Amino acid sequence: MPKLEEFQKWVKNNDLDIAYVSDFKNIEYFTGFSSDPIERVLGLFVFPNHEPFIFAPALEVEVIKEIGWPYPVYGYLDHEKPYDKIAQLIKEINPNPTKWGIEKDNLTIERFDQIKNHFSNVEVKSNLTDEINRLRLIKTPKEIEELKEAGKEADFALETAYNAVKVGKTEAEVAAELEYKLKKSGVMEMSFDTLIQAGAHAANPHGATDMNKIENNELVLFDLGTVHNGYISDVSRTIAVGKLNEKQQDIFDTCLKAQLKAQAAVKPGVKASEIDKIARDVIENAGYGEYFIHRAGHGMGLGEHEFPSIMEGNDLVLEEGMCFSIEPGIYIPDVAGVRIEDCVHVTQDGCEPFTNTTKELRYAKD
Amino acid sequence: MPKLEEFQKWVKNNDLDIAYVSDFKNIEYFTGFSSDPIERVLGLFVFPNHEPFIFAPALEVEVIKEIGWPYPVYGYLDHEKPYDKIAQLIKEINPNPTKWGIEKDNLTIERFDQIKNHFSNVEVKSNLTDEINRLRLIKTPKEIEELKEAGKEADFALETAYNAVKVGKTEAEVAAELEYKLKKSGVMEMSFDTLIQAGAHAANPHGATDMNKIENNELVLFDLGTVHNGYISDVSRTIAVGKLNEKQQDIFDTCLKAQLKAQAAVKPGVKASEIDKIARDVIENAGYGEYFIHRAGHGMGLGEHEFPSIMEGNDLVLEEGMCFSIEPGIYIPDVAGVRIEDCVHVTQDGCEPFTNTTKELRYAKD
Repeated sequence: MPKLEEFQKWVKNNDLDIAYVSDFKNIEYFTGFSSDPIERVLGLFVFPNHEPFIFAPALEVEVIKEIGWPYPVYGYLDHEKPYDKIAQLIKEINPNPTKWGIEKDNLTIERFDQIKNHFSNVEVKSNLTDEINRLRLIKTPKEIEELKEAGKEADFALETAYNAVKVGKTEAEVAAELEYKLKKSGVMEMSFDTLIQAGAHAANPHGATDMNKIENNELVLFDLGTVHNGYISDVSRTIAVGKLNEKQQDIFDTCLKAQLKAQAAVKPGVKASEIDKIARDVIENAGYGEYFIHRAGHGMGLGEHEFPSIMEGNDLVLEEGMCFSIEPGIYIPDVAGVRIEDCVHVTQDGCEPFTNTTKELRYAKD
Repeated sequence: MPKLEEFQKWVKNNDLDIAYVSDFKNIEYFTGFSSDPIERVLGLFVFPNHEPFIFAPALEVEVIKEIGWPYPVYGYLDHEKPYDKIAQLIKEINPNPTKWGIEKDNLTIERFDQIKNHFSNVEVKSNLTDEINRLRLIKTPKEIEELKEAGKEADFALETAYNAVKVGKTEAEVAAELEYKLKKSGVMEMSFDTLIQAGAHAANPHGATDMNKIENNELVLFDLGTVHNGYISDVSRTIAVGKLNEKQQDIFDTCLKAQLKAQAAVKPGVKASEIDKIARDVIENAGYGEYFIHRAGHGMGLGEHEFPSIMEGNDLVLEEGMCFSIEPGIYIPDVAGVRIEDCVHVTQDGCEPFTNTTKELRYAKD
């Protein structure tokens, strides 16, 4: 487990007595064990000079052993008090750890209070969220291979979705056909709820697929992704059904231009904020600035909301191995919505997308 | 918004200066607005003598207005600092609130630190998690109606799933067919990933539907649910494919007996822990105690993990209007898994299930 070893070294070098990893996605990153414990307690405890352990709901313990976790794993039953057990396990390794690393962006006040009830002199020496985000920011070649596989699945999903589009069908029917074909082919998990929005419905960038019917002469927006060995894909395309009017064509062309220009600018040394600005400038210059109401992109990997955030104010300098989406959108209420998105990984001198479905305007067959 | 009014009264009676609701499910409960902001900030701020406001990502603001939220809503863009804006908005209402209510079980250390950076003398006077859980514990007649509708959808889903079962098909194919038919019929959202597990695969109660093929002479476990106007259903059944051997038949019979006996015991005045014990005793007396490794049930409503928790140690006394699952299970590694589950609401003198699909052993047609 090279990532975990690296993290343990960091714990040691930073003079921590204990690091408590509570975010299940970060636990997956270090251990390969993937499970959202919802309200139950799942934790990874890392020490400078002792082997780490996982603490988990009892019903996960066998699974954790089966995936080859080489260190101890302890379970608790629903009626047991998890922090009593955790405290006891920690005390066997270190009777009174004082210098703690915790994930401030994940750990709740209540859970940290429980820790503090069991240990005197708890001092938060590190916010692990920052350190783990930094580790996760640069993907390994193996992670990029997984993301490429997920990207291929997303291309297949788009093709399937395009073929399912038909005037009179609901967005929901198209999504249903798509997910049916994916599951039949062994793609078990979508990375988020598949979004298919037709016509003016697409003007709400956080709306959901519903019983809205696809009509002639409108744009249909797709935003979807799959999960491959824990790694996700995320892609958006907008296609035409029937003939587009001038306005529809113009917002499509503008969005495409913004996406292509921003993606072409990605390379090591460029700031995240610059990529956002390139996309935003194209849209603003075309007069649609007020309709582009989200950042240009987000990091991705094990989840769809990692770092780097591609937005104004983020002066992080891009490096080889960073992975993120580039997804400008234009949403005009009561008219239409367009979004075009590829996720890419930064290469030595540019970037490479994980999805390869054409971004040029396509027309649904009908 | 009667629930919100009741909560505001509580804020006033408890002498709070401000209540900060951060859990998106609790925000949905009070406002009807449903959205998981993931890493973005969504908050509901309630004051003793002033109208409340919602603070949300900019792209949600229009949606919140459209659903008829009658009070102010403020948005922030991705590059803006949400807590700077929140602090300013609060200060316009109360320049220095000191007595705070926060959801200790939801709010992260990092976000609370941001609050404390903007206000001096922040004192946590109430853990809102406890109060809101208490409010959500007893469902209104309107909520029970929604849960009944979701239950009908779950019955339809089970029937569809049973019809899709066939020797040689993968679990994934059955799940795909089921979700396809649901979406086509307008049921847009499952309350959790549909679980279909055949044979020994079902012995992992937290496993996932996969490419495992259904074979003859085994048990197939279904655990699924839908979302109806925000309210969920959650049901489990286990059916037979082909002929069962003695062991399979025995664990099925034992699990069914445990479920029926526990459900029959539900009425106002009984403790949650007693329901768990009734189910557990049946399974222990049959010699399978070590294979029933989770609580007997969980509360449900807007989410699938509410209160009351039906488990050892929870001496909460059941009252009319409480809603929860009763779902004993027996999981024998490398052999089989059985779980049978209804969700019920407590009535004046007993309980009524939301799902009505028979729990007796059914055989897949083939």
